[in-house]
Amino acid sequence: MAHRTNESQSSSGNPGSRPRLRLLESQSTNPGDGELQVAPLGAFDLELGGRIENVSLAYRTWGKLNARGDNAIIILHALTGDSLAAGEGGWWEPVIGPGRAIDTSNHFVLCANVLGGCQGSTGPASINPATGKPWGTSFPLITIGDIVTTQRRLLEHLGVTRVIAIGGSIGGFQAIEWATRHPDLVAATGVIAAAGNLGAQGIAIHSEVGRRAIMADPNWRNGNYLEEGVFPENGLAIARMAAMVSYHSRESLGERFGRNPASRPVLYPAFGPTFDVEGYLHYHGQALTRRFDANSYLYLTRAMDLYDVARDGGEEYWLRQIRGPVLTVGISSDWLFPANEVKAFDSRLRAYGADSIYHEITSIHGHDSFLKDWDQLTPMVRTFIDAHEALQESAHA
Amino acid sequence: MAHRTNESQSSSGNPGSRPRLRLLESQSTNPGDGELQVAPLGAFDLELGGRIENVSLAYRTWGKLNARGDNAIIILHALTGDSLAAGEGGWWEPVIGPGRAIDTSNHFVLCANVLGGCQGSTGPASINPATGKPWGTSFPLITIGDIVTTQRRLLEHLGVTRVIAIGGSIGGFQAIEWATRHPDLVAATGVIAAAGNLGAQGIAIHSEVGRRAIMADPNWRNGNYLEEGVFPENGLAIARMAAMVSYHSRESLGERFGRNPASRPVLYPAFGPTFDVEGYLHYHGQALTRRFDANSYLYLTRAMDLYDVARDGGEEYWLRQIRGPVLTVGISSDWLFPANEVKAFDSRLRAYGADSIYHEITSIHGHDSFLKDWDQLTPMVRTFIDAHEALQESAHA
Repeated sequence: MAHRTNESQSSSGNPGSRPRLRLLESQSTNPGDGELQVAPLGAFDLELGGRIENVSLAYRTWGKLNARGDNAIIILHALTGDSLAAGEGGWWEPVIGPGRAIDTSNHFVLCANVLGGCQGSTGPASINPATGKPWGTSFPLITIGDIVTTQRRLLEHLGVTRVIAIGGSIGGFQAIEWATRHPDLVAATGVIAAAGNLGAQGIAIHSEVGRRAIMADPNWRNGNYLEEGVFPENGLAIARMAAMVSYHSRESLGERFGRNPASRPVLYPAFGPTFDVEGYLHYHGQALTRRFDANSYLYLTRAMDLYDVARDGGEEYWLRQIRGPVLTVGISSDWLFPANEVKAFDSRLRAYGADSIYHEITSIHGHDSFLKDWDQLTPMVRTFIDAHEALQESAHA
Repeated sequence: MAHRTNESQSSSGNPGSRPRLRLLESQSTNPGDGELQVAPLGAFDLELGGRIENVSLAYRTWGKLNARGDNAIIILHALTGDSLAAGEGGWWEPVIGPGRAIDTSNHFVLCANVLGGCQGSTGPASINPATGKPWGTSFPLITIGDIVTTQRRLLEHLGVTRVIAIGGSIGGFQAIEWATRHPDLVAATGVIAAAGNLGAQGIAIHSEVGRRAIMADPNWRNGNYLEEGVFPENGLAIARMAAMVSYHSRESLGERFGRNPASRPVLYPAFGPTFDVEGYLHYHGQALTRRFDANSYLYLTRAMDLYDVARDGGEEYWLRQIRGPVLTVGISSDWLFPANEVKAFDSRLRAYGADSIYHEITSIHGHDSFLKDWDQLTPMVRTFIDAHEALQESAHA
C-alpha cells in the first residue's frame, strides 16, 4: 500500500487544486495519448484447456506511468466495446481525462481490447499461425479469467506494479476477476452494473438467443465464413437486437419509443406497419455487423455466461482474497444485473471482509446507464478514486 | 340483461349444489363435447383493408347452448394456443368442466382457433381460392378486431345471443375487443395478463426479434416456403426462444434453471459448455416448429403489436362502451404485461364507468402463470362467473 512517490502524491486529492491541475495537464499531454498500440505477449495456456502461441493485445493509454509503476488504472470495456475509452469518441470520455474522475494528470490510464475480440487483439478472426488461416471456431474457448491473465501480462510488459481495475457489465466481471485472482497487483476495484455471475434470464435473452441466431445463419458456415468470403450479418444483427433490449429498461423504451410509428428508414423487410422501437433495433443490429466479428460475439458471450467468481473454491474463499477498496455500482432500472443483485453482492463482499461500498444510479436508462448517466456516475467514481488516493497518502504520512 | 331461462338459472350459483351438478353433468355430457368442428363463415372485409372470401373457423364446444342462446362463454386462446381449451390435454382444463370455475354443466363453452392461425381456421397456410395456392404473405394483414369479428359471426352462426368473453395475453386483447366493440353481445368480460396494448419492450423482445429471425431464415422464401416445400424451422425456433423468455420471470428461470449445466440433449450445435436454460429454450423452440406455421407467427405477433383499445376514438370512448362486469387479473411477476399496468388499466376501466374488479396472482411464474397457477386463478374466475350469475338471477327476481 505504501508505494506511491512524492510526485504522484503532490497531484492528487484536494478538489481545490483541480483548475490548476487541468492547466498543468494540458501542457503535459503525451503525444501518444489515445493512440492504438499492439503488444505481442507470447503464449498463453487457457483456463478451459487449449493454448494460443502468439497472443497480442491492442490497447490505448492516457497519462504517464510513474517511476514506481503504481499509478495505473485499467479500464475494462463491455461486450462489444473497445480500447477507445477516453478522448474524442471514447465510450467513457466524460469520466476520463485531465481533472476528470479518472484523472489522466496523475494516472496512467489504459484500456485493452479483450482477448477473443476483433479490434486488434487476438481473437477468432486472427490468423492461426499453425494453419495460416483464420482461427474461426477452432479458436479455443476463452474465459474472463483468460482475458484478465492476458491483461496482466500487458501491464507487466508496460512496467505497471499496482493498478486500479474498473469496468461495467462484462468489464465488471473482469474487475471482479482482477480483484479476486490478482490481488497482489490490484490497489482498488470498481464493479459497475455487474455481480458475481449472470443469471438464467441473462444467459437466455442476452446470450443464447443471439448465439442461436448467428449459428443458424447459413453464412456462418460452421464458423468458417471468413475463409469462405461471407458474413453472417443477419444472425449477428438479430443477436444484437435481442441484447439491446436487455441493455434498456422497460421505462426507457416506453418513454423513448412507446408505440410510436417508425421514424427511420426500414433496414429489413417490414411486416405491416412498423413501430419506432423496431427501426431502432434494426439500426443497432445492422450497425454492429459493420464493426464486430460474429465469432467474437459467440466467444465473448459464452465467456460472459461462464463467468462465476465462485468457481474453483467458492465465493467466500475468493472474495476474501480481495485487498484494496471496492466500489460497487448498481442501476435502479437494470434488468441484466438488477440493482438488488449488485447490492447483495456488495453485502457479501463486506461480509467476507472486503472494504466495499455500494452506490446506486437512479435512472430509467437500464443497464446502459453506466454509458449515459454521467452526472451520477462520475461523482461516484471520483469520490472512490480520491478516497483511494487519500488512503494511499495517509499510508505515506 | 334479463334473458336467462329458468333452466339455466336453476343450475347456477349455490356452491352447495355442486356435487349434485357434477352428477347431473356426467349423465348429460354431449357426445360432441370437445370435438373439432369447422364452420364456413363467408367473406370478411378486414380492418386494415383487404378481404377474405371464404373464412372458416375451427372450434370446439363443451356443454349445451340453452334455448335463449344466452349461456355461452367464449374462451380466447393465447398466441400459439388453440381451441383445445378443456378436456384431456386442454390448456385450461382445470378451469373448465362440469362443476368447475367455468361450469359446462350450465354453460355453452366455446373456443375457436383464431383467424390467421394454423390449426384449422383460415390463415396464411390456407389455400387462396383465387390462386389455388397457399396464401403465404399475400394473406392480408389481420387485427385483433378481425379475429373478434370472425368469432362474432361464428357465435351468431351457432345461435348465441349473449356471451361471456374471457382470455389471457393476446386472448385478453380479444376479450377487451369483445367488450368495447361488441357490447351488445357481451354479458361479462375476463381480461387476464393483458391491458389495452403492448409496450415498446414487448414489441421488441416478444415480437420483432422473432419476426426478424423468421424472415432472415433463407427457408422463409419471402413467405412462400409452403409452395417451395421448405420450412423456416430455425427462424421460428429462435422466435419462440426469445418469446419464451418473456413468458417467464427472472425468478422462475433462476429458481428452475439457475446456472445449472444442461440436463437434456443438445438440439442445436452447442457453443462450449451448455446451461440448462439453453436446452429448455432449444426444446421449446424446436417443439413449436412441429405444430405452428411460421407465417401465422408473423401475422399474429403483428396483430398483437398493433392492438390498441384506444384506436379510432380514444381509450375513454371505448371503455365507456362496456356494459357488463369486467374481471382483470394481473400477475405479480409478469414482465410482458406487468401487474401494475393491468391494475392501472382496471383503474381506468372503473374511472370510465365500467363495473371492473382487479385481482392479482402472486406467483414467480411470470406471464404464463395464467396457464399454471390454478389454485389462484380458478377461484378468481369462479367468483367472477358466479357473481355474474347472481346478478343475472337478481335481474330476474
